[in-house]
Amino acid sequence: MIPIEPIGIVRCTRLDALDDRWLSERSSIVLDPAIVGPEATLGLEDFSHIEVLFHFDALKPEEIVTTARHPRGNPAWPRVGILAQRGRMRPNALGLTRCRVVRVDGLAIEVEGLDAIDGTPVLDIKPWVQEFGPQGRTRQPDWITDLMREYW
Amino acid sequence: MIPIEPIGIVRCTRLDALDDRWLSERSSIVLDPAIVGPEATLGLEDFSHIEVLFHFDALKPEEIVTTARHPRGNPAWPRVGILAQRGRMRPNALGLTRCRVVRVDGLAIEVEGLDAIDGTPVLDIKPWVQEFGPQGRTRQPDWITDLMREYW
Repeated sequence: MIPIEPIGIVRCTRLDALDDRWLSERSSIVLDPAIVGPEATLGLEDFSHIEVLFHFDALKPEEIVTTARHPRGNPAWPRVGILAQRGRMRPNALGLTRCRVVRVDGLAIEVEGLDAIDGTPVLDIKPWVQEFGPQGRTRQPDWITDLMREYW
Repeated sequence: MIPIEPIGIVRCTRLDALDDRWLSERSSIVLDPAIVGPEATLGLEDFSHIEVLFHFDALKPEEIVTTARHPRGNPAWPRVGILAQRGRMRPNALGLTRCRVVRVDGLAIEVEGLDAIDGTPVLDIKPWVQEFGPQGRTRQPDWITDLMREYW
């Protein structure tokens, strides 16, 4: 077991994990000064986007899926493995999202498009770096393109 | 503290965490059948790339940086916060990389371009989904474009 300590928390107005329409959601990531120093975000405003790693802490252990299921329980989409989808009921319940940086004010980072509810523990923040995107052409199955249609 | 359990391990030929030239590195991610079921990767081969979340387990606690530093210790680049760079000596020592799927064989995933050394614990795998990339135009400072020049 690896002990991971939250570095901060999400503050926003969304209290329920609804599936869609996240793009206009404004949130603040409030970092914990007991964990990171005052300069931990120095220069972060020079990046347009960050990657936020967080923990779906509201999930109960019995909700975790370790094998295959229809995404969102929808039989119109194929049954796929939990590691071939991005649903939150996954081993370790880790969430990962790119979102836009609106403003950085010391240990408070205002963002847009973070799909995490109020109170979500944040485990890491990394700047989005173009060269760290997928290398070469990308390809994905139709079902997930369909699933993402209303997401943002 | 959030207890996170590795779901698998990286197997490759690179034993040292050199900084550059990762693109041609072939690795296997070997998942642990005690943690995930046999169908956990079902349908994963329909995605060209995955995101791999891993733990820099070789890092010593005293190496962790919680404030600002010059990336790679290079004074030619500005001093920036640890959350505004992707160096591994960060709080929680979490690594995150997109890499290309070469082949999926049950609980073994062969990939190309995973910048993790042999034996690295893997915490999660998610498919790369186009719509989950950064929304809108991206922007990054020159220093990191410079740093990434020899990375792949």
